[in-house]
Amino acid sequence: MNRDSLEKDLGELKEAARALRSLPRAKKDAVLAKLGSLLSQKEAEVLAANAKDLALLPDSASGSFRDRLSLNKERLKGMRESLSAVQALPDPVGEITEEKTLSGGVLAKKIRAPLGVLFLIFESRPNVAIEAFSLAFKSGNVILLRGGKESLESVTILVSLIQEALAFAGVPSGACQSLTDPDRSLIETLLSRPDVIDIAIPRGGEKLIEFVSTNAKMPVIRHDRGLCHIYVHQDADPEMAETIIENAKVQRPGVCNAMETLLVHEKRAATFLPRIFSRLSKHGVKWNACLRSFSILSPLPGASGLVRLAKETDFDTEYLDLEMSCKVVDSLDDAILHIELHGSRHSEAIVTASEPDARKFQGAIDAAAVYWNASTRFTDGFAMGLGGEMGISTQKLHVRGPVGLRELTSVRWILDGHGEIRE
Amino acid sequence: MNRDSLEKDLGELKEAARALRSLPRAKKDAVLAKLGSLLSQKEAEVLAANAKDLALLPDSASGSFRDRLSLNKERLKGMRESLSAVQALPDPVGEITEEKTLSGGVLAKKIRAPLGVLFLIFESRPNVAIEAFSLAFKSGNVILLRGGKESLESVTILVSLIQEALAFAGVPSGACQSLTDPDRSLIETLLSRPDVIDIAIPRGGEKLIEFVSTNAKMPVIRHDRGLCHIYVHQDADPEMAETIIENAKVQRPGVCNAMETLLVHEKRAATFLPRIFSRLSKHGVKWNACLRSFSILSPLPGASGLVRLAKETDFDTEYLDLEMSCKVVDSLDDAILHIELHGSRHSEAIVTASEPDARKFQGAIDAAAVYWNASTRFTDGFAMGLGGEMGISTQKLHVRGPVGLRELTSVRWILDGHGEIRE
Repeated sequence: MNRDSLEKDLGELKEAARALRSLPRAKKDAVLAKLGSLLSQKEAEVLAANAKDLALLPDSASGSFRDRLSLNKERLKGMRESLSAVQALPDPVGEITEEKTLSGGVLAKKIRAPLGVLFLIFESRPNVAIEAFSLAFKSGNVILLRGGKESLESVTILVSLIQEALAFAGVPSGACQSLTDPDRSLIETLLSRPDVIDIAIPRGGEKLIEFVSTNAKMPVIRHDRGLCHIYVHQDADPEMAETIIENAKVQRPGVCNAMETLLVHEKRAATFLPRIFSRLSKHGVKWNACLRSFSILSPLPGASGLVRLAKETDFDTEYLDLEMSCKVVDSLDDAILHIELHGSRHSEAIVTASEPDARKFQGAIDAAAVYWNASTRFTDGFAMGLGGEMGISTQKLHVRGPVGLRELTSVRWILDGHGEIRE
Repeated sequence: MNRDSLEKDLGELKEAARALRSLPRAKKDAVLAKLGSLLSQKEAEVLAANAKDLALLPDSASGSFRDRLSLNKERLKGMRESLSAVQALPDPVGEITEEKTLSGGVLAKKIRAPLGVLFLIFESRPNVAIEAFSLAFKSGNVILLRGGKESLESVTILVSLIQEALAFAGVPSGACQSLTDPDRSLIETLLSRPDVIDIAIPRGGEKLIEFVSTNAKMPVIRHDRGLCHIYVHQDADPEMAETIIENAKVQRPGVCNAMETLLVHEKRAATFLPRIFSRLSKHGVKWNACLRSFSILSPLPGASGLVRLAKETDFDTEYLDLEMSCKVVDSLDDAILHIELHGSRHSEAIVTASEPDARKFQGAIDAAAVYWNASTRFTDGFAMGLGGEMGISTQKLHVRGPVGLRELTSVRWILDGHGEIRE
């Protein structure tokens, strides 16, 4: 899709959306299976297209950016596996979520229906195209993809394989399209078309999300930042707390469900902080410590390069790296208040031996996921058994947490009568 | 609340929202019961305040506007009855909507949680204050009300009774506030505060809804217009079709679930149109008829004052009055296409003896409610057993159709582990 073909292509999107509204599951699964085999057959072409994208990348591009853009045999295998996983999931469309007989005898059923036309704006990772299409399609939606301009060749060939798979099963290939025109103003044009696009989904950094939220005339499913806390209560099992914190901070520091701030009860600080400092030092984690934790940590061996006194803004910083904030709190209430003020309503955890205190924490914290004695890293579509995810929503309306198949549906009331009228 | 006290009052709203997050049902019901008895005890004061509002109304105000603004003993009784109805409904907060064990053993529950702070902007009817508060409060939300400026005295006394009922049960009275400052720019100020207000809900005419949708920096639950169709298929029972159409057009023509356009299969037009014309003529219903229906209707006795040839724009007009459009269509597919092009995705109906044709219609039409052999007037919170409604949503995200208690909640994932980490 580009500016010249805009109206024609948008018309095809809408047309395909009508066709998908009542597409049987077997057809959907046939498309996903065919796409899996095309990804095998055309592996060389896909890798060649990706190599072109990589060759155009300026030398100044960071290693992690280059890594996110890269495809290889392993990643293609991962894409095929995710297609199989989505194929195995039940079709959410038509699921009855509520059923009642109204006075007079009208039978009313609330059933899941597709949202319609999705517009996904994402950044560098080309495999997002396959994952996002598979989830959108299985839930009966058509999707318009706009990847980062650096991934143009890769996304274009992946979308051509998707369209081949659609056509193979007799489904309108307009059901998946990509925006190939690099002109950014075209995104704005599309965001002002609620007559065609039902939902806009930005997936990327804060700037992209802000841009889409500000300009979209249709509802947005936001995948926002995660500023996640782990609170170690006075009675926490120290070994368990260490293991959870290490996993939440170190296993994949660049993701939104990683821990950014550690809170420790003041009765526990003197004994626990040196233990966890030593455990995280093996990974080179840097600390931004409040005055009380700084006074405990700074005298420790190895602290000089890793521990500094926190500024107040550190507690509002999502590091996405091997760096964290730390604060000693006086009580459970203090921990809750700190999270209320600084958290991003994504994932929050308490480590405690006390069920009543855990329940108090879980009841008071307003976030998508609130953990007792587990790592915040579980807030994820795969970990939560959704077979993948379109993102993780931190908004309260429609969906909170990982966005899977069900979360990509709306509902309709279907009502059967025998001539009933309203009295 | 007014501009001078803004920050203090918004702080009290947020504070109250925290308190309501885990308020037990018994407390909620105690508040609703107390409010019901206060409405009885203070009936004279409420009617006196309402009389002040009515006295200030200019003579130019329409009769229907004056009627919507008026309170009387009967309407106060209706308000008390709706409070009892909401009291009898189960508390949606804490309801478990999904439960699973993640790999590793973490037990994950998705539970209903309040949305938080609602901002309802409504027009003339003061009883909306009581209905909206009761639904918001029972679902654990705090609410800021902004009624039409003509209802200032009435809404102010109703909110003072609500606050008295809250205080009586030991609940922060900041949980329900009203905007008493008539300055309209204050609404804009509030719509730009997503840090305090979670959801904006406009309830009124198209201009108000457009204004709120454009200015709100937080998500909006829109209650949009209803351009509802009834399609009479070739095999429809004529008596049933007449009864349904009369009900949907005439019983309350000013509401969004009333029929605005009648579609008739061409094989049925010659016999059916004269029958339904005669039935609706008793109520003085005016017709804007397509060429084919005009040629059938215009020779009928009495047609000259009631039937005129439709302009194309008539099929996009929500009359909200004893007036309608009519079109003869060639087939079921034609009817579906007309609704796709002109409908507002609210409520649509088919009258037919054929179950397969009904299912085809229900499967193809993208609307909040799709009826087979019943009146569109059932799309309503009371009729659908939600015990009232905050509005009827025509959007696809979060809620479609009547907005009741459940629809005023979000969810949270509550996860219990034993030290589990992500591999």
